[in-house]
Amino acid sequence: MVSEVMDSKFAIRPATPADDDAIWRILEPTFRAGETYPIPRDISRADALAYWRTPGHEVFVAVEDGDVVGTYYLRANNRGGGAHVANCGFMTAPGATGKGVARAMCMHSVERARARGFRAMQFNFVIASNERAVRLWQSCGFAIVGTLPGVFEHPTRGPVDAYVMFRTL
Amino acid sequence: MVSEVMDSKFAIRPATPADDDAIWRILEPTFRAGETYPIPRDISRADALAYWRTPGHEVFVAVEDGDVVGTYYLRANNRGGGAHVANCGFMTAPGATGKGVARAMCMHSVERARARGFRAMQFNFVIASNERAVRLWQSCGFAIVGTLPGVFEHPTRGPVDAYVMFRTL
Repeated sequence: MVSEVMDSKFAIRPATPADDDAIWRILEPTFRAGETYPIPRDISRADALAYWRTPGHEVFVAVEDGDVVGTYYLRANNRGGGAHVANCGFMTAPGATGKGVARAMCMHSVERARARGFRAMQFNFVIASNERAVRLWQSCGFAIVGTLPGVFEHPTRGPVDAYVMFRTL
Repeated sequence: MVSEVMDSKFAIRPATPADDDAIWRILEPTFRAGETYPIPRDISRADALAYWRTPGHEVFVAVEDGDVVGTYYLRANNRGGGAHVANCGFMTAPGATGKGVARAMCMHSVERARARGFRAMQFNFVIASNERAVRLWQSCGFAIVGTLPGVFEHPTRGPVDAYVMFRTL
């Protein structure tokens, strides 16, 4: 059993347009590094924010001592007969890793997805070399249900696998 | 080995705007049935065509004796480090099943994807109860690399699995 009750030190709230600068400060170094998301490394600020805030994405920010230290989006992974499965993307500010921000956001997303009536959550593209993320999602109750061979061109490691990860809610 | 050289009796060519009516005659019964695509069963003609012709989709039609008997789209499954993997969606006209239309389109898509420089092809959501499609893609060289448990609400069977299927090019 994974305990989902936690005493988070982060406040997690819906993002507002006033958070765009803070969100971009998180997205930019992650997309520029090109190691964890299948997004062009040279993506512009406008395109990156449009991607994160795609219509249908519910965007949240994690705040610690007034600073935005993480952001995530929640959406339906499919429509029609697939609309009961949620999908999320998570990102932690470079200076705020290792403090439990991603775990707190993941647990928040699970609760939020349940409240919205989703019955499962699926991550479509967890890059295998991002080992910390893989272990974290496993510890949050997600299992690897698919291995996509060599689907990600890592900027230094070359082709690496990606995982599909899944849990019920 | 899967032979990819075939003497197709279908002409496969890029779709033009003049094909919209013919494409809709294929999409409509398939989406209304709701058994094979995670798309709302009551989707409108305009929304269905906009989905099939999403920017970035290269759309083809299969023609037999002047009639459009199938359609497919080809796109990049991801951007950035994932842009070398193609994705397709295929649909055969209800009155034209069992004649090899889907196989001819799949083989065409493999050649077209190779010509565009893709190095692999991935299907993200092959519904397990669509057994004919699963067997067909397997015979076209695709392997099941992931099983998504209960992610599709089938209109008569209830929750069914979907497969992620993959092949290199």
